[in-house]
Amino acid sequence: MHGKFPRFSALPLLSVLISAALADDGRPAPSNVAGREFPRIHDDLRITFRVKAPDAQNVQVVPRNDGLGHAPFDMQRDASGTWTVTTPPAQPGFHYYELIVDGMHCNDPNSETYFGWGQETSGLEVPDAKLDFYDAKDVPHGEVRIRWYPSNVTGTIRRAYVYTPPDYDSNLKQRYPVLYLQHGAGENERGWSTQGRAGFILDNLIAAGKARPMIIVMECGYATQAGSVPTPGGRGNEAFGALVVRDLVPMIDAHYRTLSDRQHRAIAGLSMGAGQALQVGLGNLDLFASVGVFSGAGRNLDLKTSFGGALADAATANSRLNLLWIGCGTEDRLFASSQAFHEALTGAGIRHVWFGGPGSHEWQVWRKHLHEFVQLLFNP
Amino acid sequence: MHGKFPRFSALPLLSVLISAALADDGRPAPSNVAGREFPRIHDDLRITFRVKAPDAQNVQVVPRNDGLGHAPFDMQRDASGTWTVTTPPAQPGFHYYELIVDGMHCNDPNSETYFGWGQETSGLEVPDAKLDFYDAKDVPHGEVRIRWYPSNVTGTIRRAYVYTPPDYDSNLKQRYPVLYLQHGAGENERGWSTQGRAGFILDNLIAAGKARPMIIVMECGYATQAGSVPTPGGRGNEAFGALVVRDLVPMIDAHYRTLSDRQHRAIAGLSMGAGQALQVGLGNLDLFASVGVFSGAGRNLDLKTSFGGALADAATANSRLNLLWIGCGTEDRLFASSQAFHEALTGAGIRHVWFGGPGSHEWQVWRKHLHEFVQLLFNP
Repeated sequence: MHGKFPRFSALPLLSVLISAALADDGRPAPSNVAGREFPRIHDDLRITFRVKAPDAQNVQVVPRNDGLGHAPFDMQRDASGTWTVTTPPAQPGFHYYELIVDGMHCNDPNSETYFGWGQETSGLEVPDAKLDFYDAKDVPHGEVRIRWYPSNVTGTIRRAYVYTPPDYDSNLKQRYPVLYLQHGAGENERGWSTQGRAGFILDNLIAAGKARPMIIVMECGYATQAGSVPTPGGRGNEAFGALVVRDLVPMIDAHYRTLSDRQHRAIAGLSMGAGQALQVGLGNLDLFASVGVFSGAGRNLDLKTSFGGALADAATANSRLNLLWIGCGTEDRLFASSQAFHEALTGAGIRHVWFGGPGSHEWQVWRKHLHEFVQLLFNP
Repeated sequence: MHGKFPRFSALPLLSVLISAALADDGRPAPSNVAGREFPRIHDDLRITFRVKAPDAQNVQVVPRNDGLGHAPFDMQRDASGTWTVTTPPAQPGFHYYELIVDGMHCNDPNSETYFGWGQETSGLEVPDAKLDFYDAKDVPHGEVRIRWYPSNVTGTIRRAYVYTPPDYDSNLKQRYPVLYLQHGAGENERGWSTQGRAGFILDNLIAAGKARPMIIVMECGYATQAGSVPTPGGRGNEAFGALVVRDLVPMIDAHYRTLSDRQHRAIAGLSMGAGQALQVGLGNLDLFASVGVFSGAGRNLDLKTSFGGALADAATANSRLNLLWIGCGTEDRLFASSQAFHEALTGAGIRHVWFGGPGSHEWQVWRKHLHEFVQLLFNP
C-alpha cells in the first residue's frame, strides 16, 4: 500500500499541477502603465510580453540588464498582428528592457519608462515574495522634493531630487545628516527614487527605528564646465566633483535643516556613481566622513596614490573615515576588483565594511546595498 | 539708378537668405534626451525627426495633439537604415507624438517621455520666441514634492505632486492658500509640473509679485472605490470627488501650512480635469470658493440643475464664489460649449471671468490659462 498510494494518487496531482501551470495566466506587472494587462508575471516568475505590430516582420524583447535573461526573446505573431513571448523565470527586482521591431529599438508601450541607458527605457518590476523592505507600506512617508537651483560650475539651472524624512515638516527644531547618493552611467537624478525606491527603503527603516532620519540628495552625475564645448552625443561628467563641492553642498546646507559638519555628511553611489563617491568623498575629506561604494570599486586602485593619497596611511584614514562601505554582487563583472579593493584595505589595516552576497550589476542589489549601508550610517 | 540698385543687390541677398535657410540645420529640441541631436528645431520651427530602423518597411511620425500638424509624416530611409523627415513649421508649445514602425506604435528614443494618452508618450517642446513665462529662470524656485499617502476611499497608497512656493521653508510662520490642479484624460499627477510647467509659472509670477504664494496640489484624476472590480484596461474616475473631499484635502491640511478655510481653497483643471473641477468644486462649496475651468466646460449644462443646483440662483452663487474662471482656445473643439457656458452665466448674472484667445486643445493654452488664472486667485 505504501508503494502504491503515491503512484495512484500522483497522476491526478500531477494533472492538477499541470493544469494549474497552464491556467496560470499571471498578473500584470506592478511596473505596467495603469490598466495594461501585459507584461504579465506568472507564479514561477516567467514573464509574458505582448504587443501589437501588425506589419512587422520581426519583434523581439531584449533584456537590458541581468535578471531577465540575456538573449533576445523572439516574439511570435498571431493572425491579428499581435506578438507574444513568454520568457523563462526572471529574477525578482527591477529590469530594463527594450523591444526591437524590424531593427528599430523602442519601448514597450505597456510599461512605465525609467531613465537608463541614456534615454527613457522600459522597466519591469518583478516582486520578490521574500523581500518587502523597498515596498510602499502604510508607514509615515518622507517626501522626494524636486528642487531646481542655479549652478555656477555648469552655468545652467539644474535639478536635484531631495528626500526629506517623514518628520521633517513637523519636527522643526531638528537638523539632519545628509547622504549624497548617485546613480549609474546612463541614468539620472530620478534613478534612486524610482528604480531604486530609496524613499520607501528609508521610510521603512526609519519607521522600524533601524536608520537615523536623514536627508538624501540625488543629483545627476553628468556635469560639464560652463562654457565648455559639448561633445556631440556625449554627456561629460568631468565637472561633477566641482559641482558637488562648490554648488550642491552649499545649496543644500542653505535650504535644508542639515547638520553641516563633515561627520554628518556622506556620499555613496552605484557603478559610475560608486567611482564618483570614492573620488569626490575621499578627495574632499574636509566635507565627507563616510563613503558608500556600490558595485563600482575601480580597477587598478593603488592605495598609496589613488584619491589624492587619502588612503595612503591607515592611521590617518581610520581617523578621518567614519564609514567606508563596499558592496558588490558575486555575479557582477566588477566583483573581482571590488573584492581586491576590500582585500587591499584589509591588508593595509584600513577599517571598512565589505558586503558580498549574490546578485549581479543591477538595481535589486543596489536596493539591498542602500538598505544595509544606511543602517550603519551616521551612527556614532 | 534707383530702380537698378535693388535689382542688382537683391540677387546676392536672396542667395544669402536661401543658403542660410538651407544651412539652417536647427538645434536639438529642449525636450530631447541629453546629448541627442534629433529632433531638431529649425529657425522657422520646422522640425526634423531622425531614427534608425534598418529593417523597417515604413516609419512615420504621428502627432498626438494639435500644434505639430495632423497627418502622419512619412519618414524617408537612407542607405544605412536611418529614417528622416522634416515637418512644416510647428506651433510653439508642448506636443505629444509617436512613431509608427511597421504598424507598431512606439516612442522616439531621442525624446523624453511624458505620461499622456494613457501611457508614456514622446514629447516635443517647441520654444516660443515671444513667451518665457513658463521657462526656468534665475528666480527663487519653489519645490515640487512627491508625497505618498494612504487613501481610505481607494484602499491604496497614492501619490500627489505638491508645489510649495519659494519661501515655504524659510517663512515658517506663513500659511498659504491651496489650489488643487487637475490634468486631462490619459494623463496623471505628473502632467502639470512637466508638460504644464506649473512650478516655473508660479515661481516667475511670485518673483514678479503678480501671484500670491500658494500651494498647488496635483493628484491623479483616476480613482476607483476600494473593493470595486477594475474594468480590464480601463481607468475609472468615479471615486475622484470622494478622494478629494475625504482623503486628499484632509491630508494636505494636516501636512502643510495651509489656510484651510474655503476662501483659500480652489480647484481647477484642464479638459477632463475641468469637468472634475466643476463637479467637485461647485459640488462642495463648503470646501471651495474658486473654480478654474480650462478647455472643458461640459456640454448640455443646465444652470438650474447641474452641480447640485449650485448655479441655480445667481445671488447665492455670486455670494459663494470668489472666482469662477472659464477659458478655452478658439480652435478647440470644445470652444462652442465653453462659450455657451460663458454666455449662459452672463445671461443669468453669475459673475465669472471668460478667457478666449487663440489656441486649440493643448498644453500651450493651458499654461496660459494657469498663468492668467492664478494672477486673479486668492486676491481679496
